[in-house]
Formats: sequence, C-alpha cells, structure tokens
Amino acid sequence: MTRSPAVLAIDVGGTSMKGAVVTRAGRPVHVDRWPTLPAEDTVSAIVGHLRSLLLVAQDLDLEVVAAGVVTPGMIDEASGTVVYASNLDWRDLPLRALLTEATGLPVVTGHDVRTAGLAEQLLGAARGVEDFALVTIGTGVAAALVTDGRPVTGAGGAAGEFGHIPMVPGGELCTCGQFGCLEVYASGAGLARRYLARTGVALPAEDVVARLGADPDADQVWAEAMQVLAQGLVTATLLLDPTTIVLGGGFTAAGDALLSPVRAQLAAGLAWRAAPPVRVAELGSEAGWIGAAALALRHAGLGDALRSWTPGAFIGAPTP
Amino acid sequence: MTRSPAVLAIDVGGTSMKGAVVTRAGRPVHVDRWPTLPAEDTVSAIVGHLRSLLLVAQDLDLEVVAAGVVTPGMIDEASGTVVYASNLDWRDLPLRALLTEATGLPVVTGHDVRTAGLAEQLLGAARGVEDFALVTIGTGVAAALVTDGRPVTGAGGAAGEFGHIPMVPGGELCTCGQFGCLEVYASGAGLARRYLARTGVALPAEDVVARLGADPDADQVWAEAMQVLAQGLVTATLLLDPTTIVLGGGFTAAGDALLSPVRAQLAAGLAWRAAPPVRVAELGSEAGWIGAAALALRHAGLGDALRSWTPGAFIGAPTP
Repeated sequence: MTRSPAVLAIDVGGTSMKGAVVTRAGRPVHVDRWPTLPAEDTVSAIVGHLRSLLLVAQDLDLEVVAAGVVTPGMIDEASGTVVYASNLDWRDLPLRALLTEATGLPVVTGHDVRTAGLAEQLLGAARGVEDFALVTIGTGVAAALVTDGRPVTGAGGAAGEFGHIPMVPGGELCTCGQFGCLEVYASGAGLARRYLARTGVALPAEDVVARLGADPDADQVWAEAMQVLAQGLVTATLLLDPTTIVLGGGFTAAGDALLSPVRAQLAAGLAWRAAPPVRVAELGSEAGWIGAAALALRHAGLGDALRSWTPGAFIGAPTP
Repeated sequence: MTRSPAVLAIDVGGTSMKGAVVTRAGRPVHVDRWPTLPAEDTVSAIVGHLRSLLLVAQDLDLEVVAAGVVTPGMIDEASGTVVYASNLDWRDLPLRALLTEATGLPVVTGHDVRTAGLAEQLLGAARGVEDFALVTIGTGVAAALVTDGRPVTGAGGAAGEFGHIPMVPGGELCTCGQFGCLEVYASGAGLARRYLARTGVALPAEDVVARLGADPDADQVWAEAMQVLAQGLVTATLLLDPTTIVLGGGFTAAGDALLSPVRAQLAAGLAWRAAPPVRVAELGSEAGWIGAAALALRHAGLGDALRSWTPGAFIGAPTP
C-alpha cells in the first residue's frame, strides 16, 4: 500500500524554532516548538528536530518526500548556503548540504521572511496578489518583496533589508553600524531603546505599545516610529508599486494605533499617486513554517497540491 | 521575393523624439530626431513619424513587422495605456490602440527608462546581468529595476520612481508636491535650482558641473547631490540587492566627479555588505529607441534575433 506524501517544515528563529509535519493536502498533522540553541549546536539541533518530525510522520503512516527549512539572514537560495545570519552567528554555512547529508531527506532552504511572504500569498493577506510587500516588524524589520508573482531575492539573496534603509540623515546609531536606519526607530528593539533613552524606564516593546494613549512618552516614540515606517513604505511604494502592503510581526498587536497613522502618512507621502492599501498579515508568526512546507512540496515536484490548500487548515490548527 | 524584416522604434521625450528603422539583425539603417510638439499634437506627430519611417523602410525594401514606442510616465504595459505622463501632459491615453489604428502596424508601447534598461542589458553596461538598477539622472531622475532578469513594472506600471523617494525629512520642496525627494537634490533641475538659490546665478546644470573644482558653490551643491544620490543607492541596494548599478543621463558627463563620491559613499553606507559596482551606462541617450526596437522585435515574435545583436552596430551608428 502506498503511503500518503507529507513534508517536514522548520522555521529557525533567533530564540525559538517551530516545526511541523504537513500533508500534501495542506493539513498540519503535527506542530512543535523548541528553543534555539547556541550557534555551535544549532545545526545539530535542526537535524535532531527533523529526525523527530520524521518519526512522527512515519507513525502517522505518511511518506516524507522533502523538508523545508527557513532561516533569517542572507541566503543564497541556489546553493542553499546561509551567507550571513547575525542572529544565529552563521557565516557561509552550507545549510542545505549539511541537512541533506545528515537526514537523507531532500531538503530545501529559504529565507524566513521571503517564505512568510509566500505563505501570505498562498493563504493569507496577499492571496491572489502578484505585487506586494510583506514588512515584518518584530525585534528588527525585514521585508518580502514580491513583484509579478515572484519574490525578489537579489543577486546574493540579500534583498528585502527594509530595516536598514537610511531614513534619517545623521540619525541614531543602529546595531548594524550605520546611522538613521529605519529599524532604529520603527522596530521592537528601537521602540524599547528609545523609550528607555527618553524616560530611563526599561520596558519591552509590547509594554510600550500597551501604554499608548496613556503615556505621552510612549505616544511620542510610537509617533516617531510611525513616521519613519510610513516614509519607508513611501519609498517601497515608489520603487516597486505594490498592489498592497502587508504588515506582520509584533507591531501588528497595536492594531489601529499602527494602521491609522501608517495609512494616513503613506497617503500624505504620495502626492501624485494613490497609496496602496495596508493590511495586517493573516498567518502571524506561523507564516514561516507554513511557507517552508510549501517550499518543500514544490521541491518534491508536488507544487500543484498547493492550489488545494486552504487557510482554514492552518489558521484553525494548533500552533507550535 | 520575401523582403527582410525590420522594426520601427520611437523614443518620445519631453523635448525631442528619436526614431529609427532597425533590421532584425540589429542594424539601425535609418535614424531621425524631431522636436516634441505640444500635448494636443503629440500623438498625431508620432503617427506622422511612424509613417515616414515606414516609407524609409519600404524604400530600403524592408518589411516592417512591428513598431515600438516608448514614453515617460506611468505606463500600463498590459493595455498599452499611458496612465499619467506629466512632461507630455497625458492622462489615461490609450497610446497603443491609437497608434495601431492610425498606422495599421502592430505597435508595442513601453516605459522609456525601463526600456533603456532592457537595451543596457542587451548591449550595454548590464550585459549578461540578471539583477541591476539603471538610474538615469537628467532633468529628473528615474530608474529601471531589473530582478532575476525581469523588469519590475509594479501593479500599475509605476515602479522605479527613484527620483521621488523621500531622502531628507522636512527637506526642500519638489515639483511633485512632496518635500525632500531625491531629485530635489540629485538631478539636473535640482542642481541648477540649488545653485541659483545659493549664488543668485542662473546656470544650466551642465555649466554647474563644468565649474566643479573651480567654484566652491558648484562643489557644494554637487557634494550634497552626491550624498543624497549615494544614500538613495544604499536604499535600492538594501531592498533589491543588485549585481551592479548603472548610472545614465546627463550627470554621467561629470565622469569621475560622479563615480568617485558615489562609489565611496555607497560603500560607506553599506556597513555589513559589499557595495555593488557602479558603472556608467554605455548606450547613453540612444538606449530608449534601441530598447524600443528590441520590444518591437519581441512583439513580432522575432525575439530570438536579439541574441545576434551586437553593441558595435548601435554604438558606431549615426545617432538621431
């Protein structure tokens, strides 16, 4: 009897990894989450998680046809090499080759945010849209840029570094070594740092957001973040002319305090053309592994199956 | 006897139009140039020029299989409509349909700078490059962005508006109605306007450039232009990760006074990644009609012929 095909998916983040076993029909039959280990152990940890997901799949009588693993950083998608990932302290790591050798599985690697963009395009806020930007605003900021249905990867896999575009000449110092980068102002880390500098009070970004409307200092650093973010979206709109802009990451918890000023200032910053609509991502922090599963299915030559995937299977499912 | 196929090409600029008859083998057998007439007469002028080029081709015993016409503005390439072209005062003009009806020829329309990018990719400074940005700096500034071998057009044909990305918060007023746009500082119009404001002396931009090294005011407005331009290229690099950046337009007459500061400041603005090489466009102001001829050949199903085109035929040829 032929077993039904499935794929493994892992999203490697700076603090945690998420994994899943997903059937060809787009049903996550198992989801899991693990802490990310220090750099020297990360690859062997991924191998261990792939093996444990493989056992789960076999117990469920599924045939694993491929694995998709997505990471942050500069990814050379053709060779499967992570050129540089600051959060993971990786440099020129031949991730795909290492994982393929260790597991015996066909492995495809990808960039976490670009892959999240694919998931939003398949099942989320960019469904059916050929030209869009997914901007995720968490601790840092990155973007998946999709034009004419295809993700912009760039010559070296380093496209979409929206967090480091220079927004304020001579502005505040960024962790990247430049001054005035977008994410110095408009990110979780930037918000917390700027609130601390202003008030002397150390609060995580989500607590700063929670004080909006009740704390003038929180309102002020937030307003500055919105201004810089909106100007960055003006730039992205002028260069790429997206049908829609999708915002993801922790900032989306702010709801209307995010969307209202961004929409208003984006429109105000585009004098002679209409502003694209700004939406919130629908798959949240699950987009990475969902997209990784989609990459794996394509890699296995089963990309057609993605057409039958529905958001319900993922949005209703248990999350890692 | 079968006549040899050829295409007509016209590049519609704000002050002049250039036209050519180009053989399938990529030989411009006739080139011409005409002043651009006021908006209400522009389309009938284009029709007249296409007819005269057609007669030339017939005299040479060539069979015209298509015409390519490129214009500035927001172009909906699918429908052949010019959504908006400020220099030509066109709005929602169904250019392709009008020209097809008036001439009986298969006509393809395109965006002048994106088409120049295609020409540079076929025959010029971006030969063989899949990811690049062609930034043309003339009176204004625009860019052709090419990713994975394909031009970025955007949802409404408005991609590549590099001249209007916001570079200086609260900066000087742009003709577009916004403040601090890149081309307020880094364009021919911007340079002349800023030199005048600083000195009270009205000079065309090329004269400001000619004074570099001998006139501290010229040096100062030029240095500010280079700074803004380089920061804009940092942004384009971070978002699109091009293999190379190609600069075109009148500013390239400055030679090393352009390339040296742009290269240095681009590298300085990219702390954690290598800067792409910056080159000067090779086809100059001929790139538009050369690209238009290429579009026409593709439109006629003869795109394969482009592989045998060589730069020599165009670079050595008489120019319109």
